[in-house]
Amino acid sequence: MKRVLVATGGGDCPGLNAVIRAIVYRASIEKDWEVLGSIQSFDGILKDETEVKVLDKDAVRGIHYRGGTIIGTTTKGGPFAWPVKKEDGSYEFEDRSDYMMDKLKELGVEAVISIGGDGSQRISQKLYEKGMNIIGVPKTIDNDLKATDFTFGFQTAVEVATDAVDKLNTTAASHNRILILEVMGRDAGWIALNSALAGGAEVCIIPEIPYDINKVVERIRRRYDKDGRGFANIVIAEGAKPLGGSALAEEYGEIGNENLKLSGAADRLARELKAAGITADIRTTVLGHIQRGGIPCAFDRNLATSFGVKAFEMVLEKQYGQMVAYRNFEVISVPLEEAIGSQKLVEPDSQMIHTAKGVGIAFGD
Amino acid sequence: MKRVLVATGGGDCPGLNAVIRAIVYRASIEKDWEVLGSIQSFDGILKDETEVKVLDKDAVRGIHYRGGTIIGTTTKGGPFAWPVKKEDGSYEFEDRSDYMMDKLKELGVEAVISIGGDGSQRISQKLYEKGMNIIGVPKTIDNDLKATDFTFGFQTAVEVATDAVDKLNTTAASHNRILILEVMGRDAGWIALNSALAGGAEVCIIPEIPYDINKVVERIRRRYDKDGRGFANIVIAEGAKPLGGSALAEEYGEIGNENLKLSGAADRLARELKAAGITADIRTTVLGHIQRGGIPCAFDRNLATSFGVKAFEMVLEKQYGQMVAYRNFEVISVPLEEAIGSQKLVEPDSQMIHTAKGVGIAFGD
Amino acid sequence: MKRVLVATGGGDCPGLNAVIRAIVYRASIEKDWEVLGSIQSFDGILKDETEVKVLDKDAVRGIHYRGGTIIGTTTKGGPFAWPVKKEDGSYEFEDRSDYMMDKLKELGVEAVISIGGDGSQRISQKLYEKGMNIIGVPKTIDNDLKATDFTFGFQTAVEVATDAVDKLNTTAASHNRILILEVMGRDAGWIALNSALAGGAEVCIIPEIPYDINKVVERIRRRYDKDGRGFANIVIAEGAKPLGGSALAEEYGEIGNENLKLSGAADRLARELKAAGITADIRTTVLGHIQRGGIPCAFDRNLATSFGVKAFEMVLEKQYGQMVAYRNFEVISVPLEEAIGSQKLVEPDSQMIHTAKGVGIAFGD
Amino acid sequence: MKRVLVATGGGDCPGLNAVIRAIVYRASIEKDWEVLGSIQSFDGILKDETEVKVLDKDAVRGIHYRGGTIIGTTTKGGPFAWPVKKEDGSYEFEDRSDYMMDKLKELGVEAVISIGGDGSQRISQKLYEKGMNIIGVPKTIDNDLKATDFTFGFQTAVEVATDAVDKLNTTAASHNRILILEVMGRDAGWIALNSALAGGAEVCIIPEIPYDINKVVERIRRRYDKDGRGFANIVIAEGAKPLGGSALAEEYGEIGNENLKLSGAADRLARELKAAGITADIRTTVLGHIQRGGIPCAFDRNLATSFGVKAFEMVLEKQYGQMVAYRNFEVISVPLEEAIGSQKLVEPDSQMIHTAKGVGIAFGD
Repeated sequence: MKRVLVATGGGDCPGLNAVIRAIVYRASIEKDWEVLGSIQSFDGILKDETEVKVLDKDAVRGIHYRGGTIIGTTTKGGPFAWPVKKEDGSYEFEDRSDYMMDKLKELGVEAVISIGGDGSQRISQKLYEKGMNIIGVPKTIDNDLKATDFTFGFQTAVEVATDAVDKLNTTAASHNRILILEVMGRDAGWIALNSALAGGAEVCIIPEIPYDINKVVERIRRRYDKDGRGFANIVIAEGAKPLGGSALAEEYGEIGNENLKLSGAADRLARELKAAGITADIRTTVLGHIQRGGIPCAFDRNLATSFGVKAFEMVLEKQYGQMVAYRNFEVISVPLEEAIGSQKLVEPDSQMIHTAKGVGIAFGD
Repeated sequence: MKRVLVATGGGDCPGLNAVIRAIVYRASIEKDWEVLGSIQSFDGILKDETEVKVLDKDAVRGIHYRGGTIIGTTTKGGPFAWPVKKEDGSYEFEDRSDYMMDKLKELGVEAVISIGGDGSQRISQKLYEKGMNIIGVPKTIDNDLKATDFTFGFQTAVEVATDAVDKLNTTAASHNRILILEVMGRDAGWIALNSALAGGAEVCIIPEIPYDINKVVERIRRRYDKDGRGFANIVIAEGAKPLGGSALAEEYGEIGNENLKLSGAADRLARELKAAGITADIRTTVLGHIQRGGIPCAFDRNLATSFGVKAFEMVLEKQYGQMVAYRNFEVISVPLEEAIGSQKLVEPDSQMIHTAKGVGIAFGD
Repeated sequence: MKRVLVATGGGDCPGLNAVIRAIVYRASIEKDWEVLGSIQSFDGILKDETEVKVLDKDAVRGIHYRGGTIIGTTTKGGPFAWPVKKEDGSYEFEDRSDYMMDKLKELGVEAVISIGGDGSQRISQKLYEKGMNIIGVPKTIDNDLKATDFTFGFQTAVEVATDAVDKLNTTAASHNRILILEVMGRDAGWIALNSALAGGAEVCIIPEIPYDINKVVERIRRRYDKDGRGFANIVIAEGAKPLGGSALAEEYGEIGNENLKLSGAADRLARELKAAGITADIRTTVLGHIQRGGIPCAFDRNLATSFGVKAFEMVLEKQYGQMVAYRNFEVISVPLEEAIGSQKLVEPDSQMIHTAKGVGIAFGD
Repeated sequence: MKRVLVATGGGDCPGLNAVIRAIVYRASIEKDWEVLGSIQSFDGILKDETEVKVLDKDAVRGIHYRGGTIIGTTTKGGPFAWPVKKEDGSYEFEDRSDYMMDKLKELGVEAVISIGGDGSQRISQKLYEKGMNIIGVPKTIDNDLKATDFTFGFQTAVEVATDAVDKLNTTAASHNRILILEVMGRDAGWIALNSALAGGAEVCIIPEIPYDINKVVERIRRRYDKDGRGFANIVIAEGAKPLGGSALAEEYGEIGNENLKLSGAADRLARELKAAGITADIRTTVLGHIQRGGIPCAFDRNLATSFGVKAFEMVLEKQYGQMVAYRNFEVISVPLEEAIGSQKLVEPDSQMIHTAKGVGIAFGD
């Protein structure tokens, strides 16, 4: 029996379970393969007491439909920076990659499939360089990987964010209010742009186009008549930055440090609008983790399933050091080395921005 | 042609449009009635330049399906406190109720239907005492009116909040995190209780049961094993208060004063949990106005439609000074005087709390 | 360890899993109880090889969110009519209730909770009369039980049907078409009435009001102008009957005999409209099992959870021969004997029909 | 003031309104353009009494969110086959294209944007050949146009169909049933394939792969154990054909002739399975027009909006005789002549079929 080990790393993302299920279903067609899941990303292998789970068809039946990941994930640590508690209570990080290689040999693991974002794939590449038979599956709701046209989870996040814009539209119109919705996306404006366009927002603020608050104010004013009648929906990406300023994440190291969420981009914009003399009521909503959860849309389930099938077939073909990617409607493989670190951002002069401006959306530029 | 004037006051609420449509459709069966909508609550009548809209069947076709209110609403002012700008730029509030009575006479309005919350119905009662032919239709997503078993909008808010809990569940489980969801409800815990129960939350914090942070901590600890494995979803009402403390709204006058949202109940709880030594990751989501928007669920559309038909029939029967109410599955009328100011809160020893504790939900008591 | 056995019988229904979970969670609070699930209704006990499953908290975690029933169900057989294959290949039905009683004793089962519809509860009563410690939990998406104000699953079915009406509305309007939607409900029109009202249908046909095709034709004609412009949405219950005619289920024994779906009430109505000279395009949709499936709405989850908690507490109090019921917003218990066979139908002169007619819905009477 | 006329033709499709809105919003940026809508496809121009509607921003605000088309559509007639009633009551079809050209001149229409399927675009090409300044926008939920990678409406239909598969899954599993879902797609299996893959169906029957009923039976049998335990979800396209047989639409001219829906592909398959000795319960659902209706998903709204902006810009650039298309994530223009009649079908040896087989879906081949 040959064994392939699967791990999911980084923030959770709708479609992870569909990838896992596809790997297991595809593997079950071959007679001599077994799939193991490492619990809580590579922690299941790295910790002293190994924690893996045999994944057969019964274990994964129906999970394509569920958000999250049945084998757990984590955003911390990993084989090259495993936290070890020192006597004084502080942590130091040690390289546990050799331990991991040994453990995998012991378990009879032939190949590893690592499903994760850019950070995870950097680790994949380093493990590959150490000699591990590893294959990457990209994962990010932010859709900011140059190597692949789409990542699963992104479309679901866009649908959830668009639903929020739809819901806020009726409130804004009924109350003559300004409603600001903050969505995820890290340094990229994909979720903001897509949901602003789909929801018919008035203003869309993305990291790739630093906003001039005066331009935003001017646009808002045009939406209100002399009686203060009018309304506006604004979608802002968490990584938004004012002209000459920086994203809050850069200022604070990370929004949500000490595991708590600080006021973010939406709140800053609201304060700036008030400071600039906007008198209309403003309400902000930070959509948060709702964007990462729930049932993946059909598009994402199918993309994720294609990725899973392809990943296992790459194992069969020993295409190690490669990553699954979606290009021009085909699932292909690309070298991990090329894939990592190549961020795909919204280009300010792209067709999509042109379209959005064509239906009157302002970007604060 | 006899005329009935309709106004919607206070925060928007799914189902308002269904009430308006039902009034118009029902009135169209009578040959000699016309429905007017006052724009932006009573402002359409109170301001110098009257702003009303004739509402016929074409104007309201299909609106039962849409959130918000097609005639607008406001949370400020009203006939007894109409803001007038003074020379120094500040405002004083004047009684414009006589002006309103005159204007209605001028417009040939026989009766007024005022759709609104407790504040609006207090105004209805005062107008009734002044001699206005007025009928109230209760409206609140908070479901906190003793006079009626249900108000429209509440069930929709519960469904939206439950969907959020569902979405957060998968993230919490995948990451071993604590996710705190803050929902609306003012002084009442109905939305929190219903969505926590439906979503299967671990902890539910409502204003009616002040929480002992130690009890919450204890419960959370029980959910995690020695490896830090486990997760918990917490639903907290915006009006939640710690034992011996007060709701943030009381502290700050109103959350969201100066039209900006301050950190709320969810953030306070997160800080308290951290302070008490909880090491698990915590993420907070404030659902905000998403709860008020969007498509009303079938239950709310039907309740709202029943209210609208009844309200117009009360006009036909000249049952002025009364409010529509839903009791024991019948739509009836009750005196406005009795209805106002009688808040319906969650009773800590009620069957629903008993049910929630029966499936293991902790309330911090 | 005391044991309680749970079974789900009859057609599946959103909320079944929430009842099961609530029983298990509530039982886990007591130290000395264990819950068993009988697989595929009572078949798990009745067949030669016993098939039961221990249901602990891990087995039911998160299932309140899922449609169907994790312990399976069946619409055939039961302890008093167990099918036994004869030598000639045909079946005879034998009374296996004594065998069942023995088997339960053997398994150490103290009490049985039977979740099911009217048919299942008749069996419960007969088993109770034989001496079984049995408690009933009502289940039907049709909401046609007089003993309880609401049954879980009904509101979900209404929401699904209303969503279908919403979707058909835009097509009907764009094409000047008549769209007929057939919904479930057996002899009762509750689902049809509620979804027609919520969706703003033009015509609603329910079993309780036999329809005069001429009245329906007349109403349809009024919706179209001289240019053939107009549209109409019709919601029809599967049990609908023309004046002087009968429901198709009565004609054919059962719609769907030989396990296949025949043309139903919607198709009959379409043919009648065509025969009466309606020239507009007509399209029919039979919603079918989509109404029974999927995620229960929050309302149903909470009702189902209340039923489950109550049912287990009735076991603790040995209230055997009783059924859980929801009356006037409280979950109570009623004698099975009274509950069975008392059908709750839509009353043609009820307030809800009055409301529907008030917003212009025609019933063909 | 220059005028552009917009018409929507053929079956309705989620996203039509988003195209219309985008054209109007984009046109409003130019100072000297006005948009007219022809009511009920080109009928508004072709009939004796012209019926067009000025579409300004107020007329289209918020419609991107709504299904259907605010200017109506029709599946009959057109400029080259305008039905004229003869004295004996029958119809003959006349060429009204010259009348149409004259009328457009009279109205001062510079250019026409025709949003419609393959049939509509054939008409566009013929009108272009007659000298009309016309631009096409492709529309089909079936996604079967070779000229464009995606058409709006398709993804929404897939999401609706997938939701149906999800709902049927729980019923199938609870009852050990076979549930057959019939979806749209004409001669193409795109909706069936995508929803079967996303929903995790057992069997998927598409027109491109004629099915061998014995293969289907064999697969179904494998899903059931000796006790008759098991279940299966089958998704079948309306255009499905058995090996050596033909699609029902070919047999009957058109399914739904005489404006009534006959039993379709799902019913045929159910009968074939029964005839082949399958004893499990079978239930069929024909999803019908629900797939065409309702709120377009974000993906479709954005695609449709891009199409609308592009179409108007093609008017500005006088790119007549061209059609908007989406290729490799860019919206481009292609000659109508090339675009029409080039059907895109599922290729049996494509990667997507390979993926579906990789997760165990059977196609009856």
